Amino acid sequence: MTQLECARSAATVTNQIREIARIERRDAAAVAKLMGDGRIVVPHNKKRALRRPCGIGESLRTKVNTNIGTSMYQTSVKEELKKADIAIRAGTDTIMDLSTGGDLKQMRAALLAEACVPVGTVPVYEAALRMAGRGNKRGSIGPNEFFDILEEQAEDGVDFFTIHAGVTRLVIERLKNQGRVLDIVSRGGALLVEWMLINNRENPYYEYFDRVLEIAHTYDITVSLGDGLRPGALADATDRAQIEELITLGELARRARDKGVQVIIEGPGHVPLDQIEMNVKLQKSLCDNAPLYVLGPLVTDIAPGYDHITSAIGGAIAAGCGADFLCYVTPSEHLRLPTGDDVELGVIATRIAAHAADIVKKVPQAMEWDIKMSRARKARDWKKQFSLAIEPKRPKKFRESSMPDLDDVCTMCGKFCAIKIIQKHLS
Amino acid sequence: MTQLECARSAATVTNQIREIARIERRDAAAVAKLMGDGRIVVPHNKKRALRRPCGIGESLRTKVNTNIGTSMYQTSVKEELKKADIAIRAGTDTIMDLSTGGDLKQMRAALLAEACVPVGTVPVYEAALRMAGRGNKRGSIGPNEFFDILEEQAEDGVDFFTIHAGVTRLVIERLKNQGRVLDIVSRGGALLVEWMLINNRENPYYEYFDRVLEIAHTYDITVSLGDGLRPGALADATDRAQIEELITLGELARRARDKGVQVIIEGPGHVPLDQIEMNVKLQKSLCDNAPLYVLGPLVTDIAPGYDHITSAIGGAIAAGCGADFLCYVTPSEHLRLPTGDDVELGVIATRIAAHAADIVKKVPQAMEWDIKMSRARKARDWKKQFSLAIEPKRPKKFRESSMPDLDDVCTMCGKFCAIKIIQKHLS
Repeated sequence: MTQLECARSAATVTNQIREIARIERRDAAAVAKLMGDGRIVVPHNKKRALRRPCGIGESLRTKVNTNIGTSMYQTSVKEELKKADIAIRAGTDTIMDLSTGGDLKQMRAALLAEACVPVGTVPVYEAALRMAGRGNKRGSIGPNEFFDILEEQAEDGVDFFTIHAGVTRLVIERLKNQGRVLDIVSRGGALLVEWMLINNRENPYYEYFDRVLEIAHTYDITVSLGDGLRPGALADATDRAQIEELITLGELARRARDKGVQVIIEGPGHVPLDQIEMNVKLQKSLCDNAPLYVLGPLVTDIAPGYDHITSAIGGAIAAGCGADFLCYVTPSEHLRLPTGDDVELGVIATRIAAHAADIVKKVPQAMEWDIKMSRARKARDWKKQFSLAIEPKRPKKFRESSMPDLDDVCTMCGKFCAIKIIQKHLS
Repeated sequence: MTQLECARSAATVTNQIREIARIERRDAAAVAKLMGDGRIVVPHNKKRALRRPCGIGESLRTKVNTNIGTSMYQTSVKEELKKADIAIRAGTDTIMDLSTGGDLKQMRAALLAEACVPVGTVPVYEAALRMAGRGNKRGSIGPNEFFDILEEQAEDGVDFFTIHAGVTRLVIERLKNQGRVLDIVSRGGALLVEWMLINNRENPYYEYFDRVLEIAHTYDITVSLGDGLRPGALADATDRAQIEELITLGELARRARDKGVQVIIEGPGHVPLDQIEMNVKLQKSLCDNAPLYVLGPLVTDIAPGYDHITSAIGGAIAAGCGADFLCYVTPSEHLRLPTGDDVELGVIATRIAAHAADIVKKVPQAMEWDIKMSRARKARDWKKQFSLAIEPKRPKKFRESSMPDLDDVCTMCGKFCAIKIIQKHLS
C-alpha cells in the first residue's frame, strides 16, 4: 500500500504520520484524514531511509524548498552538495536537484545519500540531456526512454518528481493564441515543447500518464505536477494558456489520487500582487484542494539581483491565503547559477515569507515565536533575541559592529530607547 | 495662501501642481482637486527652494521615505549627509532627519542645504534632548518651548514634521487597560508619554494643536500625524490603544484641513499579513482619506537582520490596498544605527514594495516598466536588463562574476535556457 492508501484505510495511522502530527502539534487522525483526502502529502520514496520526512498541505506549517544542481558551467557534485548542506542548515524542508550538467546520476545518488530531507527531481532534464547529446533529432528519444528515466530515478530513491504533464498540444495552441510577452520560462516546459514539436507528438507524460502513476505507485513517489506555462512576466499572469494547463493538472491530480498516488500542484511564477489570492483559490478549486507549491510568485519583473525580496512578498501573500509549499528564489535568479551565499539568503527570505503566512494560518506555535521575540525585545535581552532569530549570524554581527556603552539599548536610539523609557514610567 | 488653500480655490492650479501632474502623467486639474480634498499633499516649506518636490497620495506613485540622522553614538553630520546622498541616489522621494545626538540644528541646516527632496523632522526629539540635558525634571521644558522648537525648525525650512498629537492621556489609559506585549516602540510617542507623566499634563501638541497648525500654516508645512501607539509587536497589532489614537488623529486631520494645513497620517508598525488591508481601510475611513504613511508594516517579529524583507512584504500589501507613502526599513532595524550600505538596501527593498503596489494601483507607466524588462529578457539583452533594473549594480556584478561562453544565456540554464528554446521553436 502507498501512504495515501494507508491514510485512506481508516484503520491505519502509520508511525510516520504520528511523528509528523507530533512535530506539527496536530492530531494524528486529522492529519491522516487530510492525507486520505489528498490535502496533505508526505513525499517519501519507499526505497529511501529518510531521516527528516515532512508533511506538506492544509493545517501544516508552510514548507520551503531549495533548488540546487549542476549546470553545463558548473559540474562539480561537491559544490552542489555544499549548497545542499547550507540550505539544510538554513532550515529548508526539502531539496530539489535540478542538475543539467555533468553526471546527473552521480549527483542524484550523492544528494540522496547526504540529504536528511525529501529530495525531488525534474526527470525531463535527464531526457533533454540525452536528446541534446544526440543532436536534438526527431525520434532520438522516444516515450519509452522517458519512462526508463523515471523508473531509474525512482529506483535511486527520489521522493518526489516534477512532471510537466499539463503541457499538451492544446495548451501550446492556447499559448500561440494568447500572444505572450515571454512565452515559456519553465525549463521543463520548454524542453517538452521542443520534444513535442520536433517529434510532432503529444507530451508523453500526458499521453501515458498511467505509466507515470504506475512508477509513482510502485515506489510511493509524490508527483508534483509542473506548471510549464507559469507566467515569467507579470504581463502574462493568469492568462488563458496558464489556466488551460491548470485545468488539465486538476484532471491529472484526480487520476493520481484515484490510483493511490500523492500529488501536489506547481503554481506561478510572476504575478501582480492583486492576482495572487485568486490564483491560489483557483488552483485549490480546480485541483480538489491538492497542496499548492508556488514558485515565488515574484510581484515585479524589474528587480534582478533582489528577487529573493520580490518572491518573499509574493510567497507570503500566496501562503497566507493557502499555498502550502514555497520554492525559494535567490538573489541570483535570472542572472546566474546561485552561489552558497545566495542559497542561504534565498532560504532565509523564503522562510520569513512562510512564517509570516503561518501566523495568519494559525499554525500552532507560529505566533508564540513572535511573542517570545517581542518579550526578549522588551527585556532588551540580546542573547535571547539572537537565539530566537530566524537566522542569528547577521543580527549578531550587526550588533557587534556597533556596540553602545549602555548594554541594554542599541546605537539607533541609545538613551532615547522607547522601550526603556516606557518600562521606566509605565511598568 | 497655503498650497491646500490654493488647490481649493478652483481658479488656481499652481506651476508646482502642473509639474507634479506632468511627472506623474496625471491631469493637473484632477491633482489639484485631490489636493483640495486632502487626498494628496505636497510637502514643501515656503521658505525653502526645493529642487525635487513630490506629491503624495491618491492616484500618484507610491513614495518612499528614508530616515537618517545622528545618535548619541554617531554625531558626525558628514556621515549622515553621506547616507542622505546614498538614499537620494538609490531613489528615495523624501528624507527624514531623525537626529538625536550632537548638534541637531547644524545637522538639519546641512541636510536642508544639501538634499534636493522634501525633508521632514520629528521636533519632539529636540525637546527631549533639552529635557535630558536638564535632568528630565518636572517643568524643565514647558509647552511654550515645544512650540519655540517647532517655530525654529519651520524657520529652518523643514517641509514636513511628525507631530505625535494623538498620544493623549486617554490613549495612555487605553494602553494600560490593554496590557500590551511591547507597550510603545515609537521614540516620539515614548518621549511624550515621559514628559506627560513627569509633568502630569496633557500632550502639549494635542492640548495646543491650534498652535501646531498656526506654525504649519505660516510656513505651509505638511503635518504628519505620528502614531505613537503603533504596534511594535505582532501581538499588539490593531488593538484598542492603536485605534483610540487613530480616532484622535482623524479628528486632528480634519482640524488641520479646516485651517488650510496639509496633513498625512502615520500608520503601523508590526502587523500580521491578514490585518494590513483592514488597517489601511480603517485609517482611510477614520481620517477622511488623508494620505497614509506606513512604517513597514513588518509582518513578523522574528527576523532581525532581515527587516528590510519583513517590511517589504508588509509595505507592498499596504500600498497595494491604498497606503501612499512607505517609510523604509533597513536590515539594521532593531539592532543598530544603519550604515550607508543598510540605507541603500533599505531604499531598494522599499522601492520594490512600492513599485509592486503601483502596478496594481494602475499608476501610469508602472506596468510598462515590467513589460520592458520582460521584453529585454526575451531578447536576452543584458545591457537593456541592467539599464531597466531598479538597481543595476548588483545584477551586473552577479552576471560578471559568472559569465557563460554563450553570451545570450546565463549560467543557470546555459543551452537549456527556456526562453531561447521556445524562441527557436515557437517564434
